[in-house]
Amino acid sequence: MTEPLTATAMDIARTARIASSKLARLEAQRRTDALNQLAAELEKHASDILQANQTDCQIAAPLVEQGILSAALFKRLKLDEQKLKSVIDGVRQVAALPDPLGSIDLARELDDGLELYRIACPIGVILVIFEARPDALPQIASLLIRSGNAGLLKGGREAKNSNEAMFACIETALETCEFPPGAYKLVPGRHEVSELLKNDKFIDLVIPRGSSELVRQIQESTKIPVLGHAEGICHLYVDEFADLGMALDLAIDAKTSYPAACNSVETLLVHSAMAPSFLPVVVKAYEKAGVEVRIDAADAKKFGIKSFEPTCESDWSTEYSDLIISIKTVDSLAEAIEHINEYGSGHTDAIVTDAKGSYEIFSTEVNSAGVYWNASTRFADGFRYGFGAEVGISTGKLHPRGPVGIDGITTYKYKLVGKGHVVSNYSGAGARTFTHRNLSAD
Amino acid sequence: MTEPLTATAMDIARTARIASSKLARLEAQRRTDALNQLAAELEKHASDILQANQTDCQIAAPLVEQGILSAALFKRLKLDEQKLKSVIDGVRQVAALPDPLGSIDLARELDDGLELYRIACPIGVILVIFEARPDALPQIASLLIRSGNAGLLKGGREAKNSNEAMFACIETALETCEFPPGAYKLVPGRHEVSELLKNDKFIDLVIPRGSSELVRQIQESTKIPVLGHAEGICHLYVDEFADLGMALDLAIDAKTSYPAACNSVETLLVHSAMAPSFLPVVVKAYEKAGVEVRIDAADAKKFGIKSFEPTCESDWSTEYSDLIISIKTVDSLAEAIEHINEYGSGHTDAIVTDAKGSYEIFSTEVNSAGVYWNASTRFADGFRYGFGAEVGISTGKLHPRGPVGIDGITTYKYKLVGKGHVVSNYSGAGARTFTHRNLSAD
Repeated sequence: MTEPLTATAMDIARTARIASSKLARLEAQRRTDALNQLAAELEKHASDILQANQTDCQIAAPLVEQGILSAALFKRLKLDEQKLKSVIDGVRQVAALPDPLGSIDLARELDDGLELYRIACPIGVILVIFEARPDALPQIASLLIRSGNAGLLKGGREAKNSNEAMFACIETALETCEFPPGAYKLVPGRHEVSELLKNDKFIDLVIPRGSSELVRQIQESTKIPVLGHAEGICHLYVDEFADLGMALDLAIDAKTSYPAACNSVETLLVHSAMAPSFLPVVVKAYEKAGVEVRIDAADAKKFGIKSFEPTCESDWSTEYSDLIISIKTVDSLAEAIEHINEYGSGHTDAIVTDAKGSYEIFSTEVNSAGVYWNASTRFADGFRYGFGAEVGISTGKLHPRGPVGIDGITTYKYKLVGKGHVVSNYSGAGARTFTHRNLSAD
Repeated sequence: MTEPLTATAMDIARTARIASSKLARLEAQRRTDALNQLAAELEKHASDILQANQTDCQIAAPLVEQGILSAALFKRLKLDEQKLKSVIDGVRQVAALPDPLGSIDLARELDDGLELYRIACPIGVILVIFEARPDALPQIASLLIRSGNAGLLKGGREAKNSNEAMFACIETALETCEFPPGAYKLVPGRHEVSELLKNDKFIDLVIPRGSSELVRQIQESTKIPVLGHAEGICHLYVDEFADLGMALDLAIDAKTSYPAACNSVETLLVHSAMAPSFLPVVVKAYEKAGVEVRIDAADAKKFGIKSFEPTCESDWSTEYSDLIISIKTVDSLAEAIEHINEYGSGHTDAIVTDAKGSYEIFSTEVNSAGVYWNASTRFADGFRYGFGAEVGISTGKLHPRGPVGIDGITTYKYKLVGKGHVVSNYSGAGARTFTHRNLSAD
């Protein structure tokens, strides 16, 4: 059975690649129309979608009882009228976002009649792999449509019927707006995914949306660039010059407002000068909020902390994704920065301080995508940043970095316009020289 | 012997990582001073450097005679007073380039007192691997210094003495300007390089400068992002509406002005309507320039071409890097675009046409880093683009793409400045809403 399946994956990818160059040429209005059409189709077929979702849930329910599926996953799988409505609103919001393509960020005359432009364009073909949330499919599809990228979409198999019902709406909308065929495709199974992950000729980017486990597994198994983060090990550092009331509020919010989120704090670093006054208070507040505190036994004794688990080396590199926090005292700002750069995942790290100097050192020396001053790490999110929609959060160092909006799934190309210019005129005797004069863009 | 060597590679990388956060905080003037100091040191020690290079050449000379080293490599290895002077000029030019760090390209109020900034910053630690050109070392080091990145530098072993002499100048210059120790290091051997390539915790980017073979080998052996291109398969497409004189000039320049360059053309695509008038002329001109022509036998017969090699499938994906060209006739612009997107390497592709419409379709549908209209592909180069200096050319789709200047080896981070803002205030009853008001960036 391997042969035909492989052929299918290759065919899907090749068709998407060919369609992607046509997509790149669709005017902005056509992409907007397709998004509005998609919203209309989803509305029109709401009852079919909800029914398909019910089928998925009926299949999943016994698996939850047998302990094969988690209750949390089952909850995410369930789609109701309200949730579907907010998905449809989301598609319309993406339709209303400014178009990311075609903007010129460099325009330069190289010589008389020879002009260089750097222009925003789609990346090409993006493979998106997500877990069992059926609302992810129309969300992701709309981001891809807005940005002119072709997309191969693999949903969680628990949401199979829901995804198929929603994808039918996508197909109708795109057909209505005469999109190139094959630009978007549901990838049927896992086997096809692993074939696609090998195909760096036709696929330009992989976006896994799901557990750290999923992301790590994909990162290990492909040469294609992966946009995402396997880990969110975020820190809050309470500086020597912190306002303790503020530090307390931030410590609670950053840990407890949504512990499973990647932008939640895992480790609280406290300057030793603040520890005597701050630690007993924050630990008490954590206890009250049901947070398990892990701290060095000697520190616990020193600061009269009774209820705790002792920390060990592995705590500093663990994303608990749960109501657990590790606490460490440090003797200096430098020690805090070194700890973060050593154990952090480059996601988001915050300092609480009234000293601008401390913030400046912290924000320059901590090499994370987000460096915050007196604010909760939980703000690290595309919606909160005002990007309108979020593709994911990248902990890589290169672009796109941090929360990734639509702009993050575009790239650029250089267009050079000449009148028959050849390079041989720019060397040797009587060589022409470049003017390198910046033009006003557009 | 494996253990201590491995430890050394880890130590070098860890030290560079720690130094890189200090580097990120050095003000622009200090980095400028270090570059000017480096130029002065190279001048001061010119005779030592030339002598070290002579030693390298003496060691290499018999290897050339024995056919172990190529004559081309030997020529690149040789450093004379003139070449060294131009290297030193290059360092001073980089010193004079505008500083790429600290610029703000997004400034946005998220809510009252909560402000988001996106700021250019160094990437971190960059491993650069180059072949036996000793002039590459000070060039690359100066780009890294200008951009605030730490650097691990592995030169070709044939240039060992030259590199050590020049690296001594780098060390003195950086010490004089009180740079953090260990920010730049010569990597001693191949074993250390393979250890470093495994170390994606401490190294953020790898830049191979050398043969396609070197680049491919590195791409296969690391999870760290690699900036570069294994292949430069560039195309020139002579459209139905081309000016034939211009097409001829471009075809000759793009192939013959430097056939070993990655931005030279490998395949000439000719619209079948132009073939009868253009093919005999261009083939004759190629013959005169010593270029071997490969073309389909039937086409050759049709257009009266006598001296040629017949093409086979592998020609379309071969970078000859030599005075060889493959020629293909196509029946439409669409067929040309499809050929380029299928066989090209995404480097640079050009169309010759008088029809703006053809150019617009070509430049939007060809998904290469450079899409040119009536200009030679040989312009794809950081210096010619006016970037002042070039790190390399990337055929990846993500940023940095195409010729990469200093800006391309910076990234950005998000700084969020609050007054104790927590996310829990932005949900539930009485939730605050984000203002998302753009601020004027500094």
